[in-house]
Amino acid sequence: MPAGALTTVGIGDDSAVVTTPSGSVVAAVDLLIEGRHFRREWSSAYDVGVKAAARSLADIAAMGAVNTALLVGLAAPGTLPARWAADLAEGLAFEATRAGAGVVGGDTARADAVTLSVTALGDLEGRRPVLRSGARPGDVIAVAGLLGRAAAGLALLTAGVAQASAAPSSPEALSSLVAAQLRPAPPYDAGPEAARLGATAMIDVSDGLLADLGHLAAASGVHVNVRTARLAPSPALREAAASLPASAPSSMALEWVLTGGEDHALVAAFPPEVTLPARWRVIGEVDSGAGVTVDGAPHEGPAGWQHFR
Amino acid sequence: MPAGALTTVGIGDDSAVVTTPSGSVVAAVDLLIEGRHFRREWSSAYDVGVKAAARSLADIAAMGAVNTALLVGLAAPGTLPARWAADLAEGLAFEATRAGAGVVGGDTARADAVTLSVTALGDLEGRRPVLRSGARPGDVIAVAGLLGRAAAGLALLTAGVAQASAAPSSPEALSSLVAAQLRPAPPYDAGPEAARLGATAMIDVSDGLLADLGHLAAASGVHVNVRTARLAPSPALREAAASLPASAPSSMALEWVLTGGEDHALVAAFPPEVTLPARWRVIGEVDSGAGVTVDGAPHEGPAGWQHFR
Repeated sequence: MPAGALTTVGIGDDSAVVTTPSGSVVAAVDLLIEGRHFRREWSSAYDVGVKAAARSLADIAAMGAVNTALLVGLAAPGTLPARWAADLAEGLAFEATRAGAGVVGGDTARADAVTLSVTALGDLEGRRPVLRSGARPGDVIAVAGLLGRAAAGLALLTAGVAQASAAPSSPEALSSLVAAQLRPAPPYDAGPEAARLGATAMIDVSDGLLADLGHLAAASGVHVNVRTARLAPSPALREAAASLPASAPSSMALEWVLTGGEDHALVAAFPPEVTLPARWRVIGEVDSGAGVTVDGAPHEGPAGWQHFR
Repeated sequence: MPAGALTTVGIGDDSAVVTTPSGSVVAAVDLLIEGRHFRREWSSAYDVGVKAAARSLADIAAMGAVNTALLVGLAAPGTLPARWAADLAEGLAFEATRAGAGVVGGDTARADAVTLSVTALGDLEGRRPVLRSGARPGDVIAVAGLLGRAAAGLALLTAGVAQASAAPSSPEALSSLVAAQLRPAPPYDAGPEAARLGATAMIDVSDGLLADLGHLAAASGVHVNVRTARLAPSPALREAAASLPASAPSSMALEWVLTGGEDHALVAAFPPEVTLPARWRVIGEVDSGAGVTVDGAPHEGPAGWQHFR
């Protein structure tokens, strides 16, 4: 189905009208603020559009729903070039289309800082929503999508080791991490897939794996343990850590995996008997109790991702 | 039906889930920015909540739909008192409830200026949406709700003639205009009523009667004429105009009616044979051509409402 195929009334009237085939609508809103979630020195307008859309689209996927529509509010200074707004719209539309949705409505206003509000709408296709609260002792924890890459990209940008625009001099591995920070690419279709497979609980990794599993564990009233043997940092992450002036590159790479946010991977609990497709990697398990542990012990370090301020 | 009765999943998960009985969802987003749409010196947090909600809820009503849910994004400085945010939430919930909706989701972020994004969702109850584009020559133009009151209230506040908090010394008529600026009260149920009556086009008056009729006329490809004999300013508006240090109070009061925004009255086109309930006041008519006239002539003066900046 083409993006926006469910749009009955799009941009230009008082409201949009979107068909809801299964009798309910899934909705989420996220804000993206200049200086907090992005910097115009690093992000092109197109990048900002992709990132703003991805945040909200991932919330819909994390309910096990397919995305249908986006509504966008843009507040910006009067000095914002018209071209910047046009490129932003292109980034929003690109990412919405990738998720199967159309941009159906919006509002604009003046403000000192560029501020984006993106509301995503989705459809459950007749399934129940996969909440944070359904994980049960005995379930396995699995993740679809990549972890720690956006955090590594941010560290490279902050340290000046890599440039935002893919400089030919940057090693390809590092450039790809910067791209992950600027233009996250959540695996949207893994959300409905998890629902069909019988996931008992799901969340998208926006604050960091441990922080978001903490939300899931608290909502479900369970304890979650993750295993670092299943979370080995990729060569790109290790290369990035080694390129930074830090004392312990290998622990830094693992820290990105455990606590880095903004990649919007999906993490879910599944009954142990479910056969998972390859892209769902088992990284831990659920038992009775509370909280989240790493290899059976509390994790030392920052609890979650604080963006860059 | 109690407010939020259609909410399956509310605040606290990745997304909200709202039932859509008639197989589609109506959605609109509006931004409310400190310094542009409100001032914290004039508006209490509760007022800001009411006003932010009313803007979006009115957009849903203007499609002929009933409101079902609100999603709210709040960006604010770290110095914002927790009490302010709590009062804001109360104002949002009050106005949502008045429109039959529940607050089902949200997001918060840090920003220098208080910025609100409100997405409203609604249901058409099986009807077609009433667009801006359906007005036909021969239709009558009618309005439900009050005009010019929010603009008059803003003029009183700006001139220092009335205070934001209802001072006992302020004449009651003027206090009610200030209240209209701070806490608009759109006639939400007039929207579905107009749809049931067979309205051919509808819009809410957010930019000003003439400006919004201009949008309707352009979308419909018709000419709209309004009659000042049907738009006589109320005694309160005349009293307000007389209290300001202006040269021509009577023309100022009429100007508020014609060009003042933010009251969110609903204005609609109806086939001439429709018998309208009393709250729909006929103020003009549709014929072939383009644009909007007042008593058959172009209106001199500002085209539309510019809020207060």
